Amino acid sequence: MEFDELKGFLGDRFTTSKAIRIEHSHDESWHVPQNMPDAITYPENTNEVSKIISFAYKKNIPVIPFGTGTALEGHTHALKGGITINSSNMNQVIELNNADMDCRVQAGITRKELNNYIKDTGLFFPVDPGADASLGGMCATRASGTNTVRYGTIREQVMGLEVVMPDGKIINTGTRARKSAAGYDLTHLMLGSEGTLGFITEINLKLHGRPEAISAGVCTFKDLKGAVDTVIDSIQIGLPLSRIELLDEVQIKAINQYKKASHEVGPTLFVEIQGTPLGVKEQSEIFKEIANTNNALKFQWSDRSEEIEVLWSARHDAYYAALSLAPGKKAFTTDICVPISKLTDCILETKKDIEKSNIIAPIVGHVGDGNFHLIMLLDPENEKEVSEAKLLNDKLVNRALKMEGTSTGEHGIGIGKKEYLKIEQGLSVEVMSQIKKAIDPKNIMNPGKIFEIN
Amino acid sequence: MEFDELKGFLGDRFTTSKAIRIEHSHDESWHVPQNMPDAITYPENTNEVSKIISFAYKKNIPVIPFGTGTALEGHTHALKGGITINSSNMNQVIELNNADMDCRVQAGITRKELNNYIKDTGLFFPVDPGADASLGGMCATRASGTNTVRYGTIREQVMGLEVVMPDGKIINTGTRARKSAAGYDLTHLMLGSEGTLGFITEINLKLHGRPEAISAGVCTFKDLKGAVDTVIDSIQIGLPLSRIELLDEVQIKAINQYKKASHEVGPTLFVEIQGTPLGVKEQSEIFKEIANTNNALKFQWSDRSEEIEVLWSARHDAYYAALSLAPGKKAFTTDICVPISKLTDCILETKKDIEKSNIIAPIVGHVGDGNFHLIMLLDPENEKEVSEAKLLNDKLVNRALKMEGTSTGEHGIGIGKKEYLKIEQGLSVEVMSQIKKAIDPKNIMNPGKIFEIN
Repeated sequence: MEFDELKGFLGDRFTTSKAIRIEHSHDESWHVPQNMPDAITYPENTNEVSKIISFAYKKNIPVIPFGTGTALEGHTHALKGGITINSSNMNQVIELNNADMDCRVQAGITRKELNNYIKDTGLFFPVDPGADASLGGMCATRASGTNTVRYGTIREQVMGLEVVMPDGKIINTGTRARKSAAGYDLTHLMLGSEGTLGFITEINLKLHGRPEAISAGVCTFKDLKGAVDTVIDSIQIGLPLSRIELLDEVQIKAINQYKKASHEVGPTLFVEIQGTPLGVKEQSEIFKEIANTNNALKFQWSDRSEEIEVLWSARHDAYYAALSLAPGKKAFTTDICVPISKLTDCILETKKDIEKSNIIAPIVGHVGDGNFHLIMLLDPENEKEVSEAKLLNDKLVNRALKMEGTSTGEHGIGIGKKEYLKIEQGLSVEVMSQIKKAIDPKNIMNPGKIFEIN
Repeated sequence: MEFDELKGFLGDRFTTSKAIRIEHSHDESWHVPQNMPDAITYPENTNEVSKIISFAYKKNIPVIPFGTGTALEGHTHALKGGITINSSNMNQVIELNNADMDCRVQAGITRKELNNYIKDTGLFFPVDPGADASLGGMCATRASGTNTVRYGTIREQVMGLEVVMPDGKIINTGTRARKSAAGYDLTHLMLGSEGTLGFITEINLKLHGRPEAISAGVCTFKDLKGAVDTVIDSIQIGLPLSRIELLDEVQIKAINQYKKASHEVGPTLFVEIQGTPLGVKEQSEIFKEIANTNNALKFQWSDRSEEIEVLWSARHDAYYAALSLAPGKKAFTTDICVPISKLTDCILETKKDIEKSNIIAPIVGHVGDGNFHLIMLLDPENEKEVSEAKLLNDKLVNRALKMEGTSTGEHGIGIGKKEYLKIEQGLSVEVMSQIKKAIDPKNIMNPGKIFEIN
């Protein structure tokens, strides 16, 4: 049989079960799968991944990397069938270096598993997309989250990667040094390459010391403009916020319903400040002043860690909360990022578009970075809804590009934004394609994602 | 004539003068040039660069990018002759966006020119290698400097690049958005590629707000171990230092002599703390306590900006000061970076090696990053000195690699560290080579640097 070689060393960690293949045919997005993988594998280590990919290379079979399946642009769809490599059995912390505040993990570990593992060390890992994604998936999509405004994206946390290349070769792209000028930066080339250049197996990560004091607050505004202007003013005077998240009134309603919470319904900022006790107090006062000059209606602050955790869990569940607004529907999420000075215009114009449409679409975003999402609820089989959502998305992305922004701040291109990548990056896409062809001449790694190979 | 086409549009910004070709045959390092470029060009904009490179591509002529000529590993040597592109006429600030704290500059502008241009805006650009290098050169070598411990390297400052590719095509790799997940990260691939993949013409840069208060100090120690341990302890408790630099007693002597200063001669830390007035005061007290438990002998602190400027100018001139210790000699500088927990051992073992040798070699470094340099003084024509320096370098680099560090923290590979790159990066060098061949199939861009093409 075709896959005997794989079964030989994977045993029951190899399957062609239809149910499991269907499970692996999609991600969390609205993109309807047109195909499914032919087999699913669950390797436990780098050598097994290398053997699987070497096999696929020899036989010209597509390979689809799969973490937690929580991608949002069809990244894990098996467009041409093939072998899906599920990393969930690769979730070990290989090395933890407290003194250097770094660690080495297998790519299948999730962000919560990692933070749980290091919870008694005084260290934490800051990158936190909504889902409890795998670190490998976060690397592959160049993920970020609510802490980016202070700690940066995954791009700033990774010191090196172990990657299985399309021919099965295993490379290591970095060391444990905090910086290096040694050769091409393959680490950053792999980050955001969405599994099209290789399979990430291990990751050298920076960790961060937990702050002495944390204070977080919820602030409701009279209007959306006041909320966004508060963010811009705070960033521009250099207030060292660790998180600042916008949720419009639709998203707040969704969260109240999904999390049984009772936030005042209106445009809202969730904000967090970290530092010394005195510094945190001083800075939250400054933030309140800024918010007041921008028509803040209500503040609620806390420095109790349980309350702060509840707040951020509500934010992380924004996507699932939005889905609960229209049971049975899927979410067409879109994600752009603009220079902070353009953010108010970008959000207000977008809000007008939504109000003119028939789509329910909460706005939520990491506004401190200039990044926000629409979560457009629709039935993927309903052509009218899909085309209306596509139009909203199109308007938003083109608006962002016109404002010198990007078509995706953190979700990636996948299969959903390939056309926009061409507009945004122009001739750069030719260079990406040259690189792809050189590294993966048989186009076996996650084919059909990011751009077409011609 | 061969170059008529270039003369046609460059006029007197094209030259084959022997004196100028000799000037462009080397950088600031000890590497003895074996050849020189055939012509030097001084384009004023991207289109001219594109025309020069298109010409070279058509004729199969090497192209050597040249900023200020202050590289330290032979990066600008014209190993196979060719056309050197000097970027000194491309030093304009194209766009300054105060509200977004970013700017777009031509690649030939130097770090001091940029900081001078923005001096009245409340903003500054932090990356500061010793030399007043061009931003293009800093991008090409993935430079850092004294501010890295707080602000990161050039890697963290660049949002996008305009690059002329080997076939003359002009690409833009980013937008003005603070983050993006759109396609392969060509920005970071270009950063550190040492001119082998294209010529950087324009740069989108992040800027930073000037801190409210700055305090800087000089602290002399009884021994080298005390100085390095102070750094490690400070970093490990998370003291937010903005700069922390080590200079051994040999380097201090050199600075006293070169800058007519009167620092206490001994292992010394130059340290800087930024923040609010209260925070700075609090943190410098903590730093002093840590230093005292590590055998500090003498402190000298200042918050007067002129005094602080004098201090950092002394640090930036360390290389030239070292050269003044042995007039007529050249500097064989080496540059490694290790995890901070290994730094004391690495420096003490290295110091022993130096003391056993006949080479004068001050130690100076950005120790907060785990990065330090030896500046080995020698006569490049004196075989015995060269081979002794090579041995010291070899021991140091191998020690760093064994300690999970890198062969170069910030100077790059150039022609000097190609052998070490192979040891450090292993099979990754094959992938780098695949990328180079795909993007520059004729191998015209800065040939012979970083790795050999086979």
